[in-house]
Amino acid sequence: MPFTVPVLPEGVDPAWLPPGAFRAVGSRRTLIQGSGPLVETVHGEAAWACARFGGGVDRAAGSGTSAYDLVFRVEQGYRDEEFACGRSGGTTVVTASGGRGLLYGLFHVVRLGEDAFHGERPAEVHRPAVALRMLDHWDNVAVHPVMGQVERGYAGGSLFWRDGRARGESERVRAYARLLAACGINAVAVNNVNVHETEAHLLTDRIGDVAALAEQFRAYGIRTHLSVTFAAPVVLGGPATADPLDAGVRGWWAEATARVYESIPDFGGYVVKADSEGQPGPFAYGRSHADGANMLAAALEPYGGTVHWRAFVYDHRQDWRDRSTDRARAAYDHFAPLDGEFAANAVLQVKHGPMDFQVREPVSPVIGAMPRTRLAVEFQATQEYTGQQRHVCWLGPMWSEVLRFRPDAETAVGALADGLVAVSNAGDDPYWTGHPLAQANLYTFGRLAWDPGAGPGDVLREWIGLTHPDAPERLVDGLHAVLDGSWRTYEKYTAPLGVGFMVQPGHHYGPSVDGYEYSPWGTYHFADRDGVGVDRSAATGTGYAAQYAKVWAEVYESPDTCPDELALFFHHLPYGHVLRGGSTLIQHIYDTRFEGVAEVEAAREVWGSLAGLMEPARHARVAELYEEQLRSAREWRDQVNSYFFRKSGVPDARGRRIY
Amino acid sequence: MPFTVPVLPEGVDPAWLPPGAFRAVGSRRTLIQGSGPLVETVHGEAAWACARFGGGVDRAAGSGTSAYDLVFRVEQGYRDEEFACGRSGGTTVVTASGGRGLLYGLFHVVRLGEDAFHGERPAEVHRPAVALRMLDHWDNVAVHPVMGQVERGYAGGSLFWRDGRARGESERVRAYARLLAACGINAVAVNNVNVHETEAHLLTDRIGDVAALAEQFRAYGIRTHLSVTFAAPVVLGGPATADPLDAGVRGWWAEATARVYESIPDFGGYVVKADSEGQPGPFAYGRSHADGANMLAAALEPYGGTVHWRAFVYDHRQDWRDRSTDRARAAYDHFAPLDGEFAANAVLQVKHGPMDFQVREPVSPVIGAMPRTRLAVEFQATQEYTGQQRHVCWLGPMWSEVLRFRPDAETAVGALADGLVAVSNAGDDPYWTGHPLAQANLYTFGRLAWDPGAGPGDVLREWIGLTHPDAPERLVDGLHAVLDGSWRTYEKYTAPLGVGFMVQPGHHYGPSVDGYEYSPWGTYHFADRDGVGVDRSAATGTGYAAQYAKVWAEVYESPDTCPDELALFFHHLPYGHVLRGGSTLIQHIYDTRFEGVAEVEAAREVWGSLAGLMEPARHARVAELYEEQLRSAREWRDQVNSYFFRKSGVPDARGRRIY
Repeated sequence: MPFTVPVLPEGVDPAWLPPGAFRAVGSRRTLIQGSGPLVETVHGEAAWACARFGGGVDRAAGSGTSAYDLVFRVEQGYRDEEFACGRSGGTTVVTASGGRGLLYGLFHVVRLGEDAFHGERPAEVHRPAVALRMLDHWDNVAVHPVMGQVERGYAGGSLFWRDGRARGESERVRAYARLLAACGINAVAVNNVNVHETEAHLLTDRIGDVAALAEQFRAYGIRTHLSVTFAAPVVLGGPATADPLDAGVRGWWAEATARVYESIPDFGGYVVKADSEGQPGPFAYGRSHADGANMLAAALEPYGGTVHWRAFVYDHRQDWRDRSTDRARAAYDHFAPLDGEFAANAVLQVKHGPMDFQVREPVSPVIGAMPRTRLAVEFQATQEYTGQQRHVCWLGPMWSEVLRFRPDAETAVGALADGLVAVSNAGDDPYWTGHPLAQANLYTFGRLAWDPGAGPGDVLREWIGLTHPDAPERLVDGLHAVLDGSWRTYEKYTAPLGVGFMVQPGHHYGPSVDGYEYSPWGTYHFADRDGVGVDRSAATGTGYAAQYAKVWAEVYESPDTCPDELALFFHHLPYGHVLRGGSTLIQHIYDTRFEGVAEVEAAREVWGSLAGLMEPARHARVAELYEEQLRSAREWRDQVNSYFFRKSGVPDARGRRIY
Repeated sequence: MPFTVPVLPEGVDPAWLPPGAFRAVGSRRTLIQGSGPLVETVHGEAAWACARFGGGVDRAAGSGTSAYDLVFRVEQGYRDEEFACGRSGGTTVVTASGGRGLLYGLFHVVRLGEDAFHGERPAEVHRPAVALRMLDHWDNVAVHPVMGQVERGYAGGSLFWRDGRARGESERVRAYARLLAACGINAVAVNNVNVHETEAHLLTDRIGDVAALAEQFRAYGIRTHLSVTFAAPVVLGGPATADPLDAGVRGWWAEATARVYESIPDFGGYVVKADSEGQPGPFAYGRSHADGANMLAAALEPYGGTVHWRAFVYDHRQDWRDRSTDRARAAYDHFAPLDGEFAANAVLQVKHGPMDFQVREPVSPVIGAMPRTRLAVEFQATQEYTGQQRHVCWLGPMWSEVLRFRPDAETAVGALADGLVAVSNAGDDPYWTGHPLAQANLYTFGRLAWDPGAGPGDVLREWIGLTHPDAPERLVDGLHAVLDGSWRTYEKYTAPLGVGFMVQPGHHYGPSVDGYEYSPWGTYHFADRDGVGVDRSAATGTGYAAQYAKVWAEVYESPDTCPDELALFFHHLPYGHVLRGGSTLIQHIYDTRFEGVAEVEAAREVWGSLAGLMEPARHARVAELYEEQLRSAREWRDQVNSYFFRKSGVPDARGRRIY
């Protein structure tokens, strides 16, 4: 059956692949040389574009290419996923060693648009800096009584599951795969890392549901992964233990994995959240996390699979009275001593910061501390703590900062990790991501995973150009204006200076300054009448700062050298402390809250001015969301300011209204 | 069919009616003279007791009584529910004008036990001070996605409903009715005042479910009431409006009510929560609450029914920034101007305090302010804010204080209200109330409703005596010790000095000092670095204090005269303010938190010493709950103390540990 481009269901937004994005390719004469399933995908894409825009596609092996504007050619000498693209004699040529590289080359040409077909350009080789570019879906199969269909999902239901069953909507899944491939993603985990009863069965009797998804993803070069529970043998009627050193347990996993690969020959592997927030793990059997991960790695190894073992392990039943325990230390303390003990096909998946996807955290000290371990860095595209897809908060600059972080003088930019993972922000919402502008986060993640050194502003312009082809300059500039600084704006009106949290317990939307202050979650700010912040210095605090290599440990150790944006993450400071920026701590808190709200007001104005330049429904949806964002931003401003005014007694130097 | 005493399902606790409580009655020769359904109940009870303890029961009209130890006789000259009890010539005689009075007389004799059968005593007339002694069940028929089967229920599921259906467990309902009658309750509303979709239909097509319950309650002299939605005509397919002055609407209610009485001839009436926390009401039509209540009163009037109209009306979408609005004022502001406008069979149901069942509130100023309106005072036996039946918190003393409150010099003790209502704390738990000791709250409510002037300590001893017949003195004293001061203990470790709330949002269990501080619920304490509390004075505050008659308005107006326990309810005070008791405010907060925890520790010790003196399962259950109470009390102590230490900077004068 020849490959056909998926048809979007009625009313579903094409996101960054509207037909107009294919105009340049679709109006050319294209030759495709080579064979294989993904070459068929390239052919199908080109044919679909040409049918729409008047070009044409030929297939031929070894014939002359001069009659064509665009040639895709399989040619040996490239690494997997790599492709070269150049232009000479009026022909643009994309070469790769297989269909996978050609597919990325095709989307490269789509991004170039008309520029791909002008002048001469020497062949340039493109390859992903990171081999594993993955989305983790926190989708439940059965609706969870508290967390719902998608845990921390803000984009409607799951694309894959509904009410305990597979949705079976293959066209939509394939359309999703196409969007992901177009920004460079090559792996998807299809269920939540919190694996409940129903989801446990995906590994065994319900593997067919996973295989059906894998078939759709495969057409766009994406491997499918599965989140499994460490207790699977026990839960699924195998051995009565899940001890990773037990021969019966190892045999059970080997057997289960063999059966998975019978269904899904290119299965990517397992994702495991163990000994974390109530999930079972090797600690119960007195084994290390390396023992746990390596057991699964051994089961996957014969088939080329990988286990993603999450490093999100901490005490979630901490006593707030105990100020000696620091959750931020936990991942390093648990995992750094295990460096070198993990199998070659085990990947330790580390959240980018030491806490939990706050708007501002330092880069996790685990990154850089385990040179003999394969690491993946985990981002959160779903905006749990960054506005829940009701606020515009484009995370490109934050991710870029993390990716450019150099743990020590030896580390090259972008060399942090063997894999980059994001928790997906997509669902069955007509715009895929709830907030239409949140599409930019998903796209940006994929592009930065491919090229961690890319400028986020350039990626943003790419996304705008694809999503709104032929947009007038005013629209391009307007979209850029409302997105580009939106993360820093969000930071300004929420928890200040890296202190984190201050959110409503449970759902995490909206402010509650003390919401997690006396909780068991290890997330405290310690505000009193004199000051606020967490002393994580080595000299007087929890010692977390010393988990970094010397160059950073020294920077973070003192408030005099610590970057302002992390001042309260690393230090407990008096309200009168003068920050490096020149303001007192308390005045900085007031000023930035007022600025943040003013910036949302300005963005709302800009958005209003864009009416008429795009589909009215899209404009209206974002306009409506801006009303909520502004209400919420004002609530943040006023609660944070009132809280600190009541604590400090220091009035705003500029006499603005604090309640 | 002759009346038989309900058989308790296996494993269900007999509460305050264990067989042993009937030993004195059951070992006597009893004569019953009279007829009627409730006389049959009396006969059935006596026969059941005698079968167990060797006595005997005869029925005869007008024959000689000297051969009997105990005589129940119908005799004219008494008011409904009234009975006389005396003893002469070796015969104890209970007389009443009907079975209802005789039934209360029977339980009176049960309470007296052997004392009823010794010496001579002149006939003494007993009558309830309050005609309407009601329990409101906040039971949902369908499980509510957030609130569950029983809203604010801490005793398992509903006795009446499960998963959208009537449970149909008539024996257990009758056993419940028997317990209620034994403490004097004569009315029950069988569904939640928040009337959702499923529950709305109880009024019409599902009235049969209500009639089945009414049949069980009727056997013990209890009338059944129904909570209805004000929007019933609209919701149930009647007129498209619920305007109380619309003739079609009035006709719809008249018709619906007629059909209710066809099913339940002794139906008690409706309970309505209107224009409150999202429930519909007359405000939507520009009508007053008197208009709304009177429309329903008119529909009920021909049948002798009553409408209970709740006065719990306030703005639950308040802006915390707006310090001019005071939720405490709301009931008075809404209802006092309507005095004299309510129909004779409309009862305004007023929560005992102006806020919402906090551990300490002043008595609502509505009580005493509406002399031309029938009022019912509403208590909350279900311990929403008083430990949720995981903490021992016997509310007798609190209720007694309310009932003894005299709004002005003219009011007699116990003359506050035409009705007393409690939100039930019972469910399908084997001990009825979750915490076995919470049974004492239900019992005490009934007894205080019968006699508001009764000493709560006497009622407590009554409850102990019935629940543990033949208990050794050590057990009696132990039970008394752990219950008697438990409300004040609870007050000591939770929100101080009447300020209220400071609970976890949503579920309301456990501390969160700022949990409601920036919420829309109107429940603030305004703590800052200098002081805490709400200024409700007339001179400088919200003016709430002026809603009272002069004698109280003057007392509450000044911190110099305001009782300490309400200091922060009425005043915003600096931490250094010296209370009437001699402590500074901040030191009082610290001291009472430490005392409260010490008292829980002591009570736990006492409880431990009672092992072996009761059924082991009961002892173990309470012992286990004490562990949770102590953990929670310490959490309260430490969070409240840390919060105020961080705000005030004032150390504990006694140097105890504040985190």
